[in-house]
Amino acid sequence: MNNNPIGIFDSGIGGLTVVKEIRRILPNENIVYLGDTARLPYGTKSVDAIIQFSLENAEFLISRGAKLIVIACYSSTSVALEIVQKNLAVPVIGVIQPGVEKAVELTKNRKIGVIGTSLTIYSGAYEKAFRKIGERCEVLGKACPLFVSLVEEGWLDHPATERIAQTYLGPFKEDNIDTILLGCTHFPLLMQVFQKIMGKINYVDAAREVGTMVAEELRKLDLERGEQGGDLAIYLTDLSMNFKEIGERFLGEPMRNFSRITLKGK
Amino acid sequence: MNNNPIGIFDSGIGGLTVVKEIRRILPNENIVYLGDTARLPYGTKSVDAIIQFSLENAEFLISRGAKLIVIACYSSTSVALEIVQKNLAVPVIGVIQPGVEKAVELTKNRKIGVIGTSLTIYSGAYEKAFRKIGERCEVLGKACPLFVSLVEEGWLDHPATERIAQTYLGPFKEDNIDTILLGCTHFPLLMQVFQKIMGKINYVDAAREVGTMVAEELRKLDLERGEQGGDLAIYLTDLSMNFKEIGERFLGEPMRNFSRITLKGK
Repeated sequence: MNNNPIGIFDSGIGGLTVVKEIRRILPNENIVYLGDTARLPYGTKSVDAIIQFSLENAEFLISRGAKLIVIACYSSTSVALEIVQKNLAVPVIGVIQPGVEKAVELTKNRKIGVIGTSLTIYSGAYEKAFRKIGERCEVLGKACPLFVSLVEEGWLDHPATERIAQTYLGPFKEDNIDTILLGCTHFPLLMQVFQKIMGKINYVDAAREVGTMVAEELRKLDLERGEQGGDLAIYLTDLSMNFKEIGERFLGEPMRNFSRITLKGK
Repeated sequence: MNNNPIGIFDSGIGGLTVVKEIRRILPNENIVYLGDTARLPYGTKSVDAIIQFSLENAEFLISRGAKLIVIACYSSTSVALEIVQKNLAVPVIGVIQPGVEKAVELTKNRKIGVIGTSLTIYSGAYEKAFRKIGERCEVLGKACPLFVSLVEEGWLDHPATERIAQTYLGPFKEDNIDTILLGCTHFPLLMQVFQKIMGKINYVDAAREVGTMVAEELRKLDLERGEQGGDLAIYLTDLSMNFKEIGERFLGEPMRNFSRITLKGK
């Protein structure tokens, strides 16, 4: 038993979808969330920079007493998960492995598409995750950086969004994939556009699977909260113009308790 | 006479278009450029954050001996120019005023459109600049954040780019404007798309006017370089995947001398 909070970080506020799922499955746990909004996006930056940012974020959550850390950012999980794990004494869970396990469970023809930021796709992290669980699948990765901006602009059903999705996803149809991994926190909001272009195939949003994995891990390590809780504290490194409106879209409930925090660089 | 370099900073590498113009007009001057690529973009972040970043950038250039500083970033000029000027002993030039003066010179019907990032448009900096020079114009501002991502993705002539430009610029046609200020370093690369939608009106890219203004200021203050020079040193806070390719597109020549630098936060 451990009454400390779960720590979750992301490059911005997209990771609040992961918070939403964890709160659904573990309503009694306290959560501390850190969104590095001053330095977002992570997906167009260098591996070195993201490793440094990720270690700083994790350190902040540890200073707030986190008993387990979830990296809700796919770009950060892609290049920094192992280094953060090595540097911390608490368990650290990323968003890639849970999604990969779900995709393997769903696919029939073992042809799987992965969409994400440039960093996530070029890192090869998904291919590595498939190899790790010993699954032989044809994995096709496609960097889709504009999807992030379109979601942030709120153009979820603009004709341009569909046109851009056609360019990005069109080739997948010829590859005959039957499952797509949504490898970025923002992408589930474009689900309707994806379905319009790709039709009825499997779409994996890892947020749900991460929630289940966190619950299992807490039980296994006897880290579950023993008293009443359910608090959520949100820290952001910058409070930009529409953060609350967009944040609540991801979180699915009002953002009540949030603060701006300046991280100490290394 | 002063042989020190001119210092220029931007949120990323788009400011290299300003470098290009200054090198064209003042080929003998040495230039130190700082691109804050680790924290870009600036245009979607808070006023406070951009002021802090701008002061840190200026301080770095001063530490490299800058005799005059150019803020090549429109978002940063919009909200931080006056504070940077107050904090420094050297002259500081932004990118907004030179463009506004040019627009006033060109417009016939005094109806002027301004496009930029959300931060630039919502700051009201352009309206303020028109008032400052005592010009009564109808100024119509439009935040166009997706243009930045489209240029970075290199989709200069994708059908989606035109579709997005139609949504952003369409209303300007009804407003009957005869001049558009391109209020972001990335936008001149989309000129062909703008012309397709808006036709033959005046387009003001301030980079050129900034070069002229810097030359005048150096002459006025007797800060011109007296010996042979023409060196360009480029510092970036992150070296991301395509920075060199995109950078050279802006600079118009090969990037020979560049380094990664980590700024000390306050």
